[in-house]
This record gives sequence, structure tokens and C-alpha cells, in this order.
Amino acid sequence: MTKGELKYEGKAKKVYATDNPETYIVEYKDDATAFNAQKRGTIANKGIVNNAVTSRLFTYLASFDVPTHFIEQLSEREQLVKAVKIIPIEVIVRNKTAGSFAKRYGVEEGIVLTPTVLEWCYKSDALGDPPLNDVTAIALGLASPDELETMMDLAMDINDGLITFFANRGLELIDFKIEFGKLPSGEIILADEISPDTCRLWDTASGERMDKDRFRRDLGNVEGAYQEVFKRVMGDANA
Amino acid sequence: MTKGELKYEGKAKKVYATDNPETYIVEYKDDATAFNAQKRGTIANKGIVNNAVTSRLFTYLASFDVPTHFIEQLSEREQLVKAVKIIPIEVIVRNKTAGSFAKRYGVEEGIVLTPTVLEWCYKSDALGDPPLNDVTAIALGLASPDELETMMDLAMDINDGLITFFANRGLELIDFKIEFGKLPSGEIILADEISPDTCRLWDTASGERMDKDRFRRDLGNVEGAYQEVFKRVMGDANA
Repeated sequence: MTKGELKYEGKAKKVYATDNPETYIVEYKDDATAFNAQKRGTIANKGIVNNAVTSRLFTYLASFDVPTHFIEQLSEREQLVKAVKIIPIEVIVRNKTAGSFAKRYGVEEGIVLTPTVLEWCYKSDALGDPPLNDVTAIALGLASPDELETMMDLAMDINDGLITFFANRGLELIDFKIEFGKLPSGEIILADEISPDTCRLWDTASGERMDKDRFRRDLGNVEGAYQEVFKRVMGDANA
Repeated sequence: MTKGELKYEGKAKKVYATDNPETYIVEYKDDATAFNAQKRGTIANKGIVNNAVTSRLFTYLASFDVPTHFIEQLSEREQLVKAVKIIPIEVIVRNKTAGSFAKRYGVEEGIVLTPTVLEWCYKSDALGDPPLNDVTAIALGLASPDELETMMDLAMDINDGLITFFANRGLELIDFKIEFGKLPSGEIILADEISPDTCRLWDTASGERMDKDRFRRDLGNVEGAYQEVFKRVMGDANA
């Protein structure tokens, strides 16, 4: 499998065509951005960590019937995925208050949310990924009611799976962001990545932040936290 | 009925206790603010217009079974209302794109929204009234699922009624913001106001803006637009 044309370059990944129109190669970079790319930097070996962690998590999620774009890991920084059209809606699942949510609503971080909060954002760097409700997503033609329901159901299943997976590795899943893609058949499958870039993970014992907040908030030891998540996720704890 | 203690002073109104704990007197001011009070001014006789228009519209809505806090108009600037606890959720109904919605999602103004968009915002000047989805409103304890459903149903009924009312007066209802209050019984009723401060109204013939956007955007003839809405709303066109 060889890389063809560069189809897309995002903040943390490049996506290449392959000689098969049904597959892409994703290459994970070390570049890091935050606050809608107002803050930029690199995290050494982040691409290696996020490729491995995403490959592991997507394989795990597929094992209980979450459809994903992941086919196989090709190298330290590359994976082969199904070619999908990304739905321009970021799906955020929040188990506890943190980050932009806590700031937006003027609440402390770490409060348990009951019920679990699911948010949509319109995926647009130019607009700063604004929040979106169901009816707005439909009225703007971003997704159909059925597609929103499918994404919501999958997001909740993914949350259940990930909470357990991380809890078995001493990590609490505070919130995460996922993206979905559409196959030519219309089927909606999990795409993009799940990694310390896209999840908030707090060490269960110490409460220490083991995710991109270390970069966003200049907490130090960013690489160390990514390596620690890598070690725990790739270790052989039972899912 | 005499005014007692000042219970609350908002940007456009004052609310006073009365000698009956079940009623308040609302006094409409000429003060105008926009963009979360970053822009301030006065619109001559706005309080008179908004008191009269709200009194007329709440009476009209009550005639087809929308429960409201309105009891009677007491004077040019005062009305007697039922004492309610305001639910801290602003309810916005949008028939066409305009204002903050158009800006947030990067779309032109005046596009028909299908379905009609209903948005919640968390009523908080300090936080800039951030948008809120259903599950967030519930998780933050701002309203129950049943209360949200009641507000949504009422908002849609109110929209239907107001579209017709304004259309009969040569005005197109683009969007509007309402607030609901809770009686001691738990019943949810329409509160606050409905006026050119809280609705976008475009002249059907010319497309001219006949609402607070004239103030927000320095379009000139602000008082004239309010007076024209007053004249049309208070005229005897059939509802």
C-alpha cells in the first residue's frame, strides 16, 4: 500500500489517497494546536502515541460492534482506514464538567453531569467550531434527524466502552470529542481519532491531567503524560 | 394597586412588588442595550411602545390558550402581572436566519429555516447568555425534561400565533426571544415581554427592519420604527 495524493492536512494529521479508492492512509503528526489554533507547538512523538492509541481503541470498539473507519496500523505513524466523507459535526461527550463547558456555563471543573451531556459543534475552523443543537444541524443541512440519532447512539455506546477501558488502566474519562464519516453506502462510522489530543483523561489515583490540557494550560511534562497514556493503553489490562 | 419594593431592575424594565404577593407591577423604561450591554442608549418612548405592544400581544396569545403572566395594563408604562419565578433560560425561535445565528454559522441573513429553529440560552449577563442544549439544561439543573417540553410546545404555538398576527399587519416575524416563569403551583407561563426589543420584524413590502436592529446597527430612525410597529399592532386589523 503506497501513499498517493495528499487529500487533506489537518492540525494533527495528514490524509493520503491510496491506489484503492475505498481506502486512505492517515499519517499522525507531532504538531499540537489549542484554542482554535491560536496556540501552536509540537509534542515529541505525539504522532506515534496517538496512532497507536487510536489503533488500539478503534480495534477495541469494533469488538463490540461500533463500526469504525480503522483497517490496520501500517507503521509507527500511519494507519490504513476506510475512505469516508467526514460529517462536519464534532460530537462531544461529557461525563464531568471541564474545559470550555465549565467556562461557558460558569461552573467548576470535575462536577459529575447527570445525564451525560452530548454536544454537537459545527466543524469550522473559520467560525471557531460553534455549538449546534439538533434542529439547527438539520435546518443547516449538516445531517438528517436519523443521522443525528445514529451518531448519538454510537457516541453513547463509545462512551460506555471507553469509560470501562480507561478505568481498567487507572484513568478517568472526563470528556472526549469524536467525528463520524459517511461511507458511499450512507452508513455512518466512527472516523478521525481517539487519543490524549481528543479526550480528557485524569489519573484515577492522583487526579493529574494526562491529556492535551497539559499543553493547553502549560502544566509541564506534556510528553511524559502522553507516554504514560501510551504505556497504559498498550499494556495488557483486560478491556 | 400601588408599587411596593423594587424586586428587580433589568436593562429595559423594573419589577415592583405590590400589596398582593401574587402580583407584580412591571414598569417599562426607554433604556436600550445591545451586545450584552456593551452598547447603551435610549429610544424615546420605547417603554410606552413596548408596554402597549406586549399588553396587546399577551392578550392575543391568551385568547388561544397560551398561559401568560399578563393581567392588565395599568398606565402608559406599567402593567400588572402574575408574580412568577423566571426560568433562567431564554427561548429563541427563528423562522429565518438573522443576527447572532447568521454570524455564528457563517450564513446570510433571511434564509428560511426548515424546520423552524428553537434555541435555548442560559440567561446570564455575566456569561453572555451562552447557548444551551436540552441535556445541558437538565444536567445543570436549570429545567426538567417536562419543563423543556412544555416551553418548546408553548414557544411553537406562540410562533404560529405571532406569525399570523404580524403578517396581518405587514410585518414578517424573523425571530424572537421569550422567557417563561413558574407559578408557585409549578405551572409554566409566558412572562417578560414581546416587543420590537425582543422580535425581529421586517416590513413585508420593503424588507426594512422595524425592530431593535435599527439601534444595534445604527440604521437610523429607531423611534420611527418603534412608533410604526406600535401603530400597526394597536390598529384594528383582524388577528
